[in-house]
Amino acid sequence: MRGKFISLEGGEGSGKTTAMHFIREWLEAHNVPYIMTREPGGTPLAEDIRQLILSPRDEKVNDTTELLLVFAARAQHLAEKIQPALEKGVWVISDRFLDSSYVYQGKARGGDMAMLDLLANWVVGDNKPDATLLLDVPVDLGQARVIQRQHQDRLDKESQVFHQKVRDGFLERASMDPKRIKIIDASLSLPLVQQQIEDQLLRLSEAWSGAV
Amino acid sequence: MRGKFISLEGGEGSGKTTAMHFIREWLEAHNVPYIMTREPGGTPLAEDIRQLILSPRDEKVNDTTELLLVFAARAQHLAEKIQPALEKGVWVISDRFLDSSYVYQGKARGGDMAMLDLLANWVVGDNKPDATLLLDVPVDLGQARVIQRQHQDRLDKESQVFHQKVRDGFLERASMDPKRIKIIDASLSLPLVQQQIEDQLLRLSEAWSGAV
Repeated sequence: MRGKFISLEGGEGSGKTTAMHFIREWLEAHNVPYIMTREPGGTPLAEDIRQLILSPRDEKVNDTTELLLVFAARAQHLAEKIQPALEKGVWVISDRFLDSSYVYQGKARGGDMAMLDLLANWVVGDNKPDATLLLDVPVDLGQARVIQRQHQDRLDKESQVFHQKVRDGFLERASMDPKRIKIIDASLSLPLVQQQIEDQLLRLSEAWSGAV
Repeated sequence: MRGKFISLEGGEGSGKTTAMHFIREWLEAHNVPYIMTREPGGTPLAEDIRQLILSPRDEKVNDTTELLLVFAARAQHLAEKIQPALEKGVWVISDRFLDSSYVYQGKARGGDMAMLDLLANWVVGDNKPDATLLLDVPVDLGQARVIQRQHQDRLDKESQVFHQKVRDGFLERASMDPKRIKIIDASLSLPLVQQQIEDQLLRLSEAWSGAV
């Protein structure tokens, strides 16, 4: 039985890291074989590409360059890590995936949506996640959480307007593909956020174990 | 007056490095402002991408990943180095450019030619070189020259069949775009090779200085 592929999406401060921990504990408790991974990254080469994308540098990074680097890393991640795991029956939980490209490189930075569609079809095709959990919080709350943190990378330094575009972009993606993308209200208390996530994990694991 | 953009192409051992030195001396002697550059690479970020492409690694590099990395570097190279130089009237001489992608990632490795065309149109568009000098040598001669060298990178280790595909691929490109791609017979003696290169430089510089 093929593993399930779940991606987590959301803006800065939406609680993805906490959600990843919760999902890990849940899968352990239910004896589901899994790997946790992230984008950009997930393999040694893809992590090297991630470093190129996220490291601050004096040189202006061309938007097309960034988009192609993200998809180069994704092609490697899918071929060398995600697909082999799913084929072995292992669940794959990825911190970010395709939707982040549409939202960050496309919607928020005004990238070429037609080219994004071509790259998505070419690199990802039918290998979309079985479920995408979109952790949604108002921009003010997300930013208040981010300010608490020590480390900020290049994406953290963007403006309020940018973060609103990111939130709107994710919600638009969810409205276009409601069967795959499930909106998790991440402004609620932790137990209520985790309950929403668990509902989705139960739904997926019932379909999965039922088919074994 | 916009500078001229010249790319040098050819398989391993075709004498590109020697030709680059000759062109540099010729441009110096004729007081033509120029920069010498190379692909993949040409800017700090693009050179970092080059390292990812050419460094040997244990991880299998997905063909799609390699193709996207090459075009990511090219987008950066064009936007941050080639176009600004040409606009200032500076000539740009690049060791490899677009044709190498068609030949190495496309023809020799069996890449997706339709996707290559899409990437080429999107990233390069009308910004093709004014002239491409294709240094052509029979595979046997090119390989004999390569064996002399100390350092070999990943591409040097490919088989004879691969190198024949590379040569055939370049000649096919030249036959498709004879106005831009000029075949230089690089199996001849050095003075005769340099005479062919100088003929092309004279042709370009007459058009250039005539239009000042």
